[in-house]
Amino acid sequence: MKKLEETTFAIVGLGLIGGSYAKALKNLKVKRIIGMNRNPVVALMAKDEGYITDICEADGKLLKEADVIINALYPKAFLEFVEQQVQNFKADVLLTDVMGIKADFPQQVDAILKPGMDFVSGHPMAGREGKGYGQSAAEIFNNANYIVIKREGNKPENVAFLKELAMAFGCKRVVELTTKEHDAIIAYTSNLPHIMAVSLVNSDSMHDNTKYFIAGSFRDATRVADINAALWKDLFLLNKANVRAEIAKLQAQLTKWDKALENGDEKLIVQMMEDAKHKREDLFNAKNFR
Amino acid sequence: MKKLEETTFAIVGLGLIGGSYAKALKNLKVKRIIGMNRNPVVALMAKDEGYITDICEADGKLLKEADVIINALYPKAFLEFVEQQVQNFKADVLLTDVMGIKADFPQQVDAILKPGMDFVSGHPMAGREGKGYGQSAAEIFNNANYIVIKREGNKPENVAFLKELAMAFGCKRVVELTTKEHDAIIAYTSNLPHIMAVSLVNSDSMHDNTKYFIAGSFRDATRVADINAALWKDLFLLNKANVRAEIAKLQAQLTKWDKALENGDEKLIVQMMEDAKHKREDLFNAKNFR
Repeated sequence: MKKLEETTFAIVGLGLIGGSYAKALKNLKVKRIIGMNRNPVVALMAKDEGYITDICEADGKLLKEADVIINALYPKAFLEFVEQQVQNFKADVLLTDVMGIKADFPQQVDAILKPGMDFVSGHPMAGREGKGYGQSAAEIFNNANYIVIKREGNKPENVAFLKELAMAFGCKRVVELTTKEHDAIIAYTSNLPHIMAVSLVNSDSMHDNTKYFIAGSFRDATRVADINAALWKDLFLLNKANVRAEIAKLQAQLTKWDKALENGDEKLIVQMMEDAKHKREDLFNAKNFR
Repeated sequence: MKKLEETTFAIVGLGLIGGSYAKALKNLKVKRIIGMNRNPVVALMAKDEGYITDICEADGKLLKEADVIINALYPKAFLEFVEQQVQNFKADVLLTDVMGIKADFPQQVDAILKPGMDFVSGHPMAGREGKGYGQSAAEIFNNANYIVIKREGNKPENVAFLKELAMAFGCKRVVELTTKEHDAIIAYTSNLPHIMAVSLVNSDSMHDNTKYFIAGSFRDATRVADINAALWKDLFLLNKANVRAEIAKLQAQLTKWDKALENGDEKLIVQMMEDAKHKREDLFNAKNFR
């Protein structure tokens, strides 16, 4: 396996996640970090701050130098990028992505790549509110889980390289999934909490004076209501069937609450809370979670 | 108005909230802090730690010394306490509570109190996960909002005293509400987020491997799923009509999401997220919120 200090990386899209990869890679003292960004000011800033060593222009010529290309663009822009730039990729490039939705992107990318090039898909279970390079930080990887989509045809050494890279970033664990498993699980653990936060804030009960009656529970429940709408619109729509199934399951729980309240069913109400308490304890016990 | 250093307080129920009052009162160097607790071990511990100066036994005799009684019992136990101990209250006692539900408790308490005694209801918009004295902390008041239920018949000097006490604890603001306003607002800002957290954890999508796919959004959305079930069961049921109305409004938002996804309505999806972003920014801007 290639050593990190001998590996040249290219990061395409220096937003919150792409910028975080640049910062984490710099910590690892990799050979070079090439940055490519639609808005040249951001790339200049990243270079000025020392998180990228070189700026790749729109012609993509510098991509030829990259052993590993990390694509941190929005889902739709990702495919366009591969189509436009594949002629500039190294013959044995390892291409990876950070997309929170997989759908049939891996197969679509495979169809564009030339033999010898390898797309190993994945992403860190990490992020934060807001968007853009200014929000990026190497620390988002600390103790996070990292998902790798292992597919038939991937070169084992590339899968191993990506897994080691994630652990070197400070991730706690790498988990392998199929694209289908990934999208179903993410609909529950990531897409749904975001929709819940937005829905709570958008409730008809929100008024000008609501701010005077808020404590920790409301603050936490709405933290991720401030998200990058343009990106998440794609994540939700590309994962539509799974997301709708999760909304339905949540609604079933809420309906259960409504009926229990209507019936004054003290036993069921206590049981729902006790169940949740134990399930959450299991989720977040020290061995399982950061 | 009575000075704090000349005022004797009694705290009934040394749990998470009662214990926090004891700790905050100690910081203020009040004259005496009498503690009363069903489980005597907790009262002994609080006295040993110096957060209460005296222990009131079940006979309630020591309550006679208290200028201010802070009742931090569960809603139903509160009424029983007032009925059983009213003969031990000072003739001009200021009685207050910390209950997250008001319903018709104030009128019920008034009916038990003797003329000259005054019940000024209220509570801090504060709390934390878990339960019990061990979780208590003076810091829960820091920058919190404090609600005072101002009713006809309350002595203005007592209302003023309670408001000053809340600010002395480190609260950011005191807001006055009627009981009806209180319960409707709390159903949205407190009851509903707790039900959402429990519902998310209890979804049929929860599996043994869910823990590997969790990031900040799920963690935050479920933080308050670990609550005191016996207490919250009462809070929910005593506020049943308001809580059910809030569940319905949330369901309406979720259904709006479901339809937008079904129809692939990109514009509506982006708009919902943008709306939520702006509403939340307004809620939590520095001027409004801790």
